[in-house]
Amino acid sequence: MSSSSLDAMIAALKCLPGIGQKSAQRMALHLLERDQPAAKRIAETITHALETVRHCRQCRNFSDTDLCEICHDDRREQQTICVVETPADVLAVESSAAYRGRYFVLQGRLSPLDGFGPGQLGLEELEQQLSQGGVKEVILATSATVEGDITAQYIADMAARHQTISSRLARGIPLGGELEFVDGGTLSRALSGREQID
Amino acid sequence: MSSSSLDAMIAALKCLPGIGQKSAQRMALHLLERDQPAAKRIAETITHALETVRHCRQCRNFSDTDLCEICHDDRREQQTICVVETPADVLAVESSAAYRGRYFVLQGRLSPLDGFGPGQLGLEELEQQLSQGGVKEVILATSATVEGDITAQYIADMAARHQTISSRLARGIPLGGELEFVDGGTLSRALSGREQID
Repeated sequence: MSSSSLDAMIAALKCLPGIGQKSAQRMALHLLERDQPAAKRIAETITHALETVRHCRQCRNFSDTDLCEICHDDRREQQTICVVETPADVLAVESSAAYRGRYFVLQGRLSPLDGFGPGQLGLEELEQQLSQGGVKEVILATSATVEGDITAQYIADMAARHQTISSRLARGIPLGGELEFVDGGTLSRALSGREQID
Repeated sequence: MSSSSLDAMIAALKCLPGIGQKSAQRMALHLLERDQPAAKRIAETITHALETVRHCRQCRNFSDTDLCEICHDDRREQQTICVVETPADVLAVESSAAYRGRYFVLQGRLSPLDGFGPGQLGLEELEQQLSQGGVKEVILATSATVEGDITAQYIADMAARHQTISSRLARGIPLGGELEFVDGGTLSRALSGREQID
């Protein structure tokens, strides 16, 4: 490209997940050719978010304020905590509209090799919340991987020490899933967890 | 999301071409969770590009300076002009490494319904360059569409008025193209433009 500031912009956009040279180029040219107000808005909102966004004191999710909107909402059940790995998981659970409790965001999962121990996941803060009483159930919505399972087990043990029930999301065939395309592990879990029809 | 500044950032990222709600969300969370320096760099480079990038006085391509690097380069043939529709097309031709002349970027193509007439495409500037003499050939590399063809014909007529040769990119089967998957129009052009083997 014959403009070094455009080259710098393309190089920066390549840091976005899933964006390579061609896509970054297309984005940069689109913004400059067709939508300069959007370009300005992107730059401003990123700068503002970097300055403003912090972690909620209670649930560790992203928030503009000390206590996030969900934690601050009196209409949500305070005695149920859903433990998830990332802020994106909070959005996923919220979109189901099937949960009215509060959250705790680990911002990772137990993985000693990657340097993620109980300290990095804020498990001490979670234990403190459990020790204060008032929490009846901890729903473990960590991912369905080995590390997610280990993290869930660790937190379940912690909940047990504080006389709190813990549960794990059900595993089985996803809605609309055709048996033909479901992997063996999932089918095995769906079989062992089969529900009786009344 | 429980952070309005993050929501604003996601909404802004959705203006990027090919990016919907889910991708914008993934990008925003990735930048804030894992790569804040990249987020800062994206905001800064966009702001800088918006302030710096202008159109080259001669070829209308994006440039940081009054005359772009290609127009400024003495080693490039000054008597050949390749006319393309967009800055992305310049990058595409440059990547072929098969062209050593200079460019003229229309920033669009003749399309009266969309408000693109000769004035919007800078065709007066191009005619002025042709009238000064010194240009031997105009290569018409507009796209292979009806509007691209009309634009090419318009410029070819203009070149003829100034005793300048004009040519159009060859049409035919793309490299690696299998006949089975080539459309009828392309095949028809490839047949009528067949080359004799010596």
